[in-house]
Amino acid sequence: MEIIQGGVTAAKGFKAAGLAAGIKKKNGKKDMAMVVSEKPCVTAGTFTQNRVFAAPVKWDRDIVYNQEYSQAVVVNSGIANACTGVEGDNACALEAETAAEALGIPAKSVLLGSTGVIGMQLPMDVMCEGIKKLPYLLDSTLEAGTLAAEAIMTTDTRDKQVACTVEIGGKKVTVGGMCKGAGMIHPNMATMLCFITTDVAIEKKALQKMTSEIVSDTFNMISVDGDTSTNDTALVMANGLAENPVITEDSEEYGVFYEALFYVFRELSKKIAGDGEGCTCLFEVKVKGAVDKENAKILAKSVCTSNLTKCAIFGHDANWGRILCALGYSGADFDPEKVDIFFESEAGSLQIVKDGVATDYSEEKATEILSKNPVTAVCDVKMGDATATAWGCDLTFDYIKINADYRS
Amino acid sequence: MEIIQGGVTAAKGFKAAGLAAGIKKKNGKKDMAMVVSEKPCVTAGTFTQNRVFAAPVKWDRDIVYNQEYSQAVVVNSGIANACTGVEGDNACALEAETAAEALGIPAKSVLLGSTGVIGMQLPMDVMCEGIKKLPYLLDSTLEAGTLAAEAIMTTDTRDKQVACTVEIGGKKVTVGGMCKGAGMIHPNMATMLCFITTDVAIEKKALQKMTSEIVSDTFNMISVDGDTSTNDTALVMANGLAENPVITEDSEEYGVFYEALFYVFRELSKKIAGDGEGCTCLFEVKVKGAVDKENAKILAKSVCTSNLTKCAIFGHDANWGRILCALGYSGADFDPEKVDIFFESEAGSLQIVKDGVATDYSEEKATEILSKNPVTAVCDVKMGDATATAWGCDLTFDYIKINADYRS
Repeated sequence: MEIIQGGVTAAKGFKAAGLAAGIKKKNGKKDMAMVVSEKPCVTAGTFTQNRVFAAPVKWDRDIVYNQEYSQAVVVNSGIANACTGVEGDNACALEAETAAEALGIPAKSVLLGSTGVIGMQLPMDVMCEGIKKLPYLLDSTLEAGTLAAEAIMTTDTRDKQVACTVEIGGKKVTVGGMCKGAGMIHPNMATMLCFITTDVAIEKKALQKMTSEIVSDTFNMISVDGDTSTNDTALVMANGLAENPVITEDSEEYGVFYEALFYVFRELSKKIAGDGEGCTCLFEVKVKGAVDKENAKILAKSVCTSNLTKCAIFGHDANWGRILCALGYSGADFDPEKVDIFFESEAGSLQIVKDGVATDYSEEKATEILSKNPVTAVCDVKMGDATATAWGCDLTFDYIKINADYRS
Repeated sequence: MEIIQGGVTAAKGFKAAGLAAGIKKKNGKKDMAMVVSEKPCVTAGTFTQNRVFAAPVKWDRDIVYNQEYSQAVVVNSGIANACTGVEGDNACALEAETAAEALGIPAKSVLLGSTGVIGMQLPMDVMCEGIKKLPYLLDSTLEAGTLAAEAIMTTDTRDKQVACTVEIGGKKVTVGGMCKGAGMIHPNMATMLCFITTDVAIEKKALQKMTSEIVSDTFNMISVDGDTSTNDTALVMANGLAENPVITEDSEEYGVFYEALFYVFRELSKKIAGDGEGCTCLFEVKVKGAVDKENAKILAKSVCTSNLTKCAIFGHDANWGRILCALGYSGADFDPEKVDIFFESEAGSLQIVKDGVATDYSEEKATEILSKNPVTAVCDVKMGDATATAWGCDLTFDYIKINADYRS
């Protein structure tokens, strides 16, 4: 596997564009993106498990579950089109029809994504004007991918793109993706918005299986604030232009592509956690020695989402008691008197707790380690062989600042 | 029922004291409290469900579950005596023995409470010196109760006391209590530390049943930061000095005393939520029309613990989308398209959402309502008759400030 530059335009046959349509009137920032494949794509997706789900989630679910192919994605930022009733559903249909006409493809092959304020209706005149302009800006360059990645940002401080290549059956296969998300991040089956494109040839069923499995180990293991969004959507589009032998669930090459797709998902997940609203660092929690994978995940997520632990990380304070406390209330199976805890970063590794009580560690060294980005806490519960990793960030003054008056 | 001044010394036959023993060396603040009954007390208690529980929790559980009576409580603040291994257990035994000797009662009738930093050992010389001094300061005045309530504070900004009287069988029965807690508040069977005293005559079994039921509707419905403490303890001591006919589970008067005890528990719960670390207001979430009590509780707690909603409350921003989103990811049963949401405070009541979409409400009026303390959000899910109330607070810059370097 080779890591390369780029995002949604890295794979063969994909073009992208981004522009400022005028949804974010106040600041004139980019607010619409389009990604188009030259060939119809086998498509997999995972969506929010929030009972309150946005209109575009409903639209995309129908396409991913009931259509053979998709070919384009239209995304806007600024307004989430969630809690918008029938008017929101109608907006989705109009978006897709407008894009379909402009691109000469069926409306039911146009996937949609929206992110921003919940409860406001989309300004459809502005949206449709944007959708009609975007096809003229489509390009296959990395820069075009970046414009799209920038156009889907809300409180993100940077665009998020990852890509890699892998050889399958003598052919070079490329996977690339972009995502956005900084707040309301506690995915349950998917994160805010993530679009991955690949030129791999693969059966729809195999792609969906792989995507669902990977999401549970990547996007479902990140949290910024414990709030599961109404718009979580992760989509993977595969157009087959790499011309590798078609991958099925039983292919020998299934695992090779799995690894590449996993890499893209995991790195995008870390980019979201590491750009959490107001945060100063990516906070990684590795649990080792759990009785099984499920318990390992529960323990890792509990530490990663503890407000008190996140404040301590912000303060570079080795307050391990909060970590042990968060393990304790997680509900997972472990013995507090067996736990070892280590802090790690580029400044080194330090054991803070051995068998549930503090070691005679240097607070100075601990602070040095905790002052770097990223910071990792390793919790070895010494019960079995299962491991899990969760990603989050510290909780800071700026998180409050951003969220006290998000709408104004 | 009559609401009166006072706390743990309100009921007949209880004395209290508080002093600065020297555990909080840095600031010379009060850090030890003692409450003693002149007669042995029937005792009920609920404790943290965190798998990591402090040594005094272990000590108290044994007394509440296995002893007929208790007669005194010794509490320290500054150090939690949690994650302290065998040394922590030995400290508890020594505390109880020292108090028992000074008071002339059995060690197994001395309840203990500790709160503060996790992972540090108690300075036993300082503790024992304090325990020996406290009996000389014991008094039955309200002021003595206040000294005790102040001595158990950590990041609390004010002491928390509630009392009331009720007539049972022609006798005046008094219930009073004190508690502490401002951070690491997300009780699961009890909160940080709560001590309630009463002169009611009641059977142990009836008192425990009542206490467990009430705690699930009061302390278990508050949250400051989602972190369940290692030290949560709520104790009720009843010395029988009111000389009412002894209350049993089948007594007609069970309900009368239940109401009084419920009042004290609920008001103490609200005092904790309303003094949440760094908060500017008590945030009350009432859910109406849920299919059953369990679903009502889940919905109310989900909104109350949402970081994003709490930031919006801090910003006086009627961001109802976050409330609907938090209802949605709670996992409880409801139909998003039926939900009505209202904001209420002393400035009035305003319907913000009807049937899942925004009403044409005045943002100005909403901000006016949200600028008061306390603030209430009412969510009517219109599915059935069940209701529940949860209490929390807003999330502010000061919460981060307090918790970024709590130990230093």
